Amino acid sequence: MADRYQRFSNSGVGRVLVKRLGLPNPTPLRRHRPGDPALDGPVLLGAAPGGRLVDQVAGVCAAAGTEVVTSPAGAHGALVFDATGVRRVEQLRALYDFFNPVLRSLGTCGRVVVLGTPPERIADAEEQVAQRALEGFVRSVGKELVCGATAQLVYVEPGAEGDIASTLRFLLSGKSAYVDAQVIRIGVLGGNAAEPDDWASPLAGKVALVTGASRGIGAAIAEVLARDGAHVVALDVPAQGDGLAEVANRVGGSALQLDITAADAPARLSDHLRTRHGGVDIVVHNAGITRDKKLANMKDPAWDAVLSVNLASQLRVNAALLDGVLRDGGRIIGVSSIAGIAGNTGQTNYATSKAGVIGMVNAYAPVVGRGITVNAVAPGFIETKMTAAVPLVIREAGRRMNSLAQGGLPVDVAETIAWYANPASGAVTGNVVRVCGQSLLGP
Amino acid sequence: MADRYQRFSNSGVGRVLVKRLGLPNPTPLRRHRPGDPALDGPVLLGAAPGGRLVDQVAGVCAAAGTEVVTSPAGAHGALVFDATGVRRVEQLRALYDFFNPVLRSLGTCGRVVVLGTPPERIADAEEQVAQRALEGFVRSVGKELVCGATAQLVYVEPGAEGDIASTLRFLLSGKSAYVDAQVIRIGVLGGNAAEPDDWASPLAGKVALVTGASRGIGAAIAEVLARDGAHVVALDVPAQGDGLAEVANRVGGSALQLDITAADAPARLSDHLRTRHGGVDIVVHNAGITRDKKLANMKDPAWDAVLSVNLASQLRVNAALLDGVLRDGGRIIGVSSIAGIAGNTGQTNYATSKAGVIGMVNAYAPVVGRGITVNAVAPGFIETKMTAAVPLVIREAGRRMNSLAQGGLPVDVAETIAWYANPASGAVTGNVVRVCGQSLLGP
Repeated sequence: MADRYQRFSNSGVGRVLVKRLGLPNPTPLRRHRPGDPALDGPVLLGAAPGGRLVDQVAGVCAAAGTEVVTSPAGAHGALVFDATGVRRVEQLRALYDFFNPVLRSLGTCGRVVVLGTPPERIADAEEQVAQRALEGFVRSVGKELVCGATAQLVYVEPGAEGDIASTLRFLLSGKSAYVDAQVIRIGVLGGNAAEPDDWASPLAGKVALVTGASRGIGAAIAEVLARDGAHVVALDVPAQGDGLAEVANRVGGSALQLDITAADAPARLSDHLRTRHGGVDIVVHNAGITRDKKLANMKDPAWDAVLSVNLASQLRVNAALLDGVLRDGGRIIGVSSIAGIAGNTGQTNYATSKAGVIGMVNAYAPVVGRGITVNAVAPGFIETKMTAAVPLVIREAGRRMNSLAQGGLPVDVAETIAWYANPASGAVTGNVVRVCGQSLLGP
Repeated sequence: MADRYQRFSNSGVGRVLVKRLGLPNPTPLRRHRPGDPALDGPVLLGAAPGGRLVDQVAGVCAAAGTEVVTSPAGAHGALVFDATGVRRVEQLRALYDFFNPVLRSLGTCGRVVVLGTPPERIADAEEQVAQRALEGFVRSVGKELVCGATAQLVYVEPGAEGDIASTLRFLLSGKSAYVDAQVIRIGVLGGNAAEPDDWASPLAGKVALVTGASRGIGAAIAEVLARDGAHVVALDVPAQGDGLAEVANRVGGSALQLDITAADAPARLSDHLRTRHGGVDIVVHNAGITRDKKLANMKDPAWDAVLSVNLASQLRVNAALLDGVLRDGGRIIGVSSIAGIAGNTGQTNYATSKAGVIGMVNAYAPVVGRGITVNAVAPGFIETKMTAAVPLVIREAGRRMNSLAQGGLPVDVAETIAWYANPASGAVTGNVVRVCGQSLLGP
């Protein structure tokens, strides 16, 4: 799984050379394997006075079979701090007091999770300021952590205390290996979480549509959703038919050859899902293309094709599926991109479409109703055939310019999507989470 | 004004070497000098069908004495596109159609401005998506532009069409030299704009408080606000008394020695402003300190001092001044930082405080009332004594890792603050604008 440089830097000679020369030294990331415990522990749990999430965090850990400790002695798999009690700027000191003595006790690929209250939901000005300040803290901690450890900020709306299980399990596990320094909101717009009967198979009985499923990130999404129990309808254009059939067979799903930009595609897709599967529960808009060229040199078909595949067709598919095909409690999941957030040279078309995907999340999440959630992932540098074709120097820059000093894998994007898809994530909506190892790049 | 590398790269030999070696070649930026025209032109003005801002843009340009053309022939000082008519994803094609043929006609230090409607104010889902997509376009264009040109996105709320003059003048002029790829909102929370009698002296009759005014960015803020006609009350700690007196004298203002973290500081400051000046119109919270150290090695006084100066004291000062000292139509302006947005190694304390400044803007802007606006700037790499002390390699990385391939100057931050302070910016509130040359760094 590791790239060539990473294999070298973790070899005997490589380790010495890398250290002497001050080169990046990426830690092989701990990733989830079926049978692994949901959480790695022990978890050191702390809180600012007046916090409202300690019992919930302890309960999630207990249910997952993870040890929780409150003494700073010893090594820790994760440091979880409930900062919801921080109402004054002076009380931010509780962050320092908790983390300063124990940061060095955090193990390889350890986890820092800070829990707060969504600032936009707070009436008191100083409390809002203090909670918003948490973001600067967590993003800085993310940059200071070493050895594959990550830091996240989870804002939990008052009333959503019982809805944190899927998110906490995801963040503490190897499933979030390449998710770093993200801000996640639970409960602001969403419904309630329904805990799955079996956390190893949370999508049992669900039907998941994955577009662009014949290879790369799409194939990984199909695999992970199938692993979690879903029947996957793998969709791709007819030209990708062989790869598509192979993926569909591998995951025990079904293949659907369709060009989603065709005028009749939404109707045909709806018909297919309704007649063959009685509807759909999870829609992953993964299909996407690039036609890179600087705007001054771009031909208009390149603009039109990218906007059509990556954005316009997705809106048309949504409209069709929301008309009685996507079931109650459904999931719409978009795939944005760092380029859609930060912009990118040569990608005015692509970045416009991927910023539009964020717009799709913002537009749909508050109004879609019926317990349906709408979220997106925004991948950073992911190791695929597409990125393998990037020139070496640019590729190496993309790989190393993040806090984990390595590219992510397709499975990292897929695991994040599976977290959204989990029935226990019913209160997780309106989020755009980057899967980028805390890439330096941003808006 | 230019740094040493920039002087070299713009010399005869330097220019050749830089080109051969593919090194960054920063263009000396056009900056405002008194007497310069408010806008540089001609402005090529275009619009998607159904736009609502063309007449307003033309009116602002006419009032400022800037030529507006609608023919793509010839060279242009700015390309302004009204995208408020874009309601469908397919209509984003209007961006391509307008910009593709004319991007090469944009002159040195030219300007791209795209105008849209704030997505969060749009009921129709597809229109919201299309307007949100503009952000990906503008940020990509910003990265493609060369020779000191910049690109911005301005979201104008329906009803605020008459309130765009100060923002458009700022963005098109040399005053926004180091502001690049920003998203600005007009009218979402604000009141109405009051055009100044004299655009060369918009702050005539106003009293401006500038904290940390004895040097660097604070001194530049004092100078620019005084240039614009304000009486500046320059505040700093007693230890900076000499520098402070020098700045106050230079700008024809007054000096106030005060440690804003002292318990009685808000009351003393209020008394001073009320008795000496009858109140205050513009408050610039520029005072800030750093005490850098990784969190695991940080001593608690370093945490406390930074949070106290950079955040807690500012909230206490606000509370005191909002109690009848800050006049109607007043301005509260914070100074955040890229570190507060993206986080930074060794700056958990600083980034927490600077993220809190963003929280201050978010918390106060919607509720403060009386025509008072609350905004912040977030400087990137600015050439000051503080950054001159940074080790060479890190300094050069900071300087070059942005679309303009150079550091900004204190005056660039000051001009942005003066734009907020302008009486014509009454509808500009709740904004956090980076002054960073489109730094690559982000959250």
